[in-house]
Amino acid sequence: MLAYAELLAFDRMADDATLAPDLRRRAVLSEMAGAEIANHRRVADRIVELGADPERAMAPFRPALDAYHGQTQPSDWLEALTKAYVGDSIADDFAREIARGLGPADHDLVLDVLRESRYAEFAAAEIREALTGDAAATPRLSMWARRLVGEALSQAQRVAAERPAFSELLAAATDGDDGVAAMLKRLTAAHTDRMDAIGLNN
Amino acid sequence: MLAYAELLAFDRMADDATLAPDLRRRAVLSEMAGAEIANHRRVADRIVELGADPERAMAPFRPALDAYHGQTQPSDWLEALTKAYVGDSIADDFAREIARGLGPADHDLVLDVLRESRYAEFAAAEIREALTGDAAATPRLSMWARRLVGEALSQAQRVAAERPAFSELLAAATDGDDGVAAMLKRLTAAHTDRMDAIGLNN
Repeated sequence: MLAYAELLAFDRMADDATLAPDLRRRAVLSEMAGAEIANHRRVADRIVELGADPERAMAPFRPALDAYHGQTQPSDWLEALTKAYVGDSIADDFAREIARGLGPADHDLVLDVLRESRYAEFAAAEIREALTGDAAATPRLSMWARRLVGEALSQAQRVAAERPAFSELLAAATDGDDGVAAMLKRLTAAHTDRMDAIGLNN
Repeated sequence: MLAYAELLAFDRMADDATLAPDLRRRAVLSEMAGAEIANHRRVADRIVELGADPERAMAPFRPALDAYHGQTQPSDWLEALTKAYVGDSIADDFAREIARGLGPADHDLVLDVLRESRYAEFAAAEIREALTGDAAATPRLSMWARRLVGEALSQAQRVAAERPAFSELLAAATDGDDGVAAMLKRLTAAHTDRMDAIGLNN
């Protein structure tokens, strides 16, 4: 899931870079996309090391991840940044939750790969700056963020429901007394905090 | 010129990656795009070191480079690879010609950045494989390659004509007895050799 998510993140960020208002921002975002594809390679190499084929391992996650991106195409630079800040953060939290049930080597790899995504911080700083200069942007981006979180949580639920291994990993991480519903609650709470931090309304 | 060319190369290769027939090839091309944006950073850093602003330094080259890519949008994976093999190689040769007139540090940086573009070799291997399996592909890609070289040489000529500094660099590299016309001749000869090497007709 993470291998395909990183491949898609590269693709989407490279695309969003063309929405940047100047060449400096475009280059920054393009470099961040470069970091995502390097992360993809690390995860894909680990998949090969475990004796599996990355293409086949990624296949089951394509429908949910493609659907998420297909349903949430940003139409401008600020929508692209908000999608990064809101959507990528939820996806990262989801991957961290699942990773808690992995062995130490894989757990560390996942956390390390997620730490490399500096896009959310860049996005948050840019959004904060934009909101102070444009009063109409707050309601518009707040509505966009609600659409994003709805779509992200519904696809996360879909992935978790379709893959029994996810529930087992979750159960392993929490001594069995914690299920998908509790995880979705935690994802939502973290999302609410992020919206507050940036001045958007839930 | 090279800074903007690398930024565009990233963008174009990231886009072409979505034409790949499978996730493995898509990831390979995406990683190569990642190498291009790293190259962009190296050249942009050098521009800053020289006391200039990368955005302003790149601006004069946008029309010619944007026009080249706008006129040569590949419609499938093989056209994208042929564009890389034919077009990127001419662009690289052009940059190498100009770089001969630079001081040693900048000359080495340019050569180093161009050496990092492994895309042409990957493209050549893929095209060769495709041509052996599909007889109709040879005339189709030969025609496409002719369109590419025409557009590339016309934009190279435009850049050289618009920027007197280029002619000065060329003159410096060849003790003054060599002009733009001779350079275009060398670019064309190298292109012809590449077409032969891969089995496409001039």
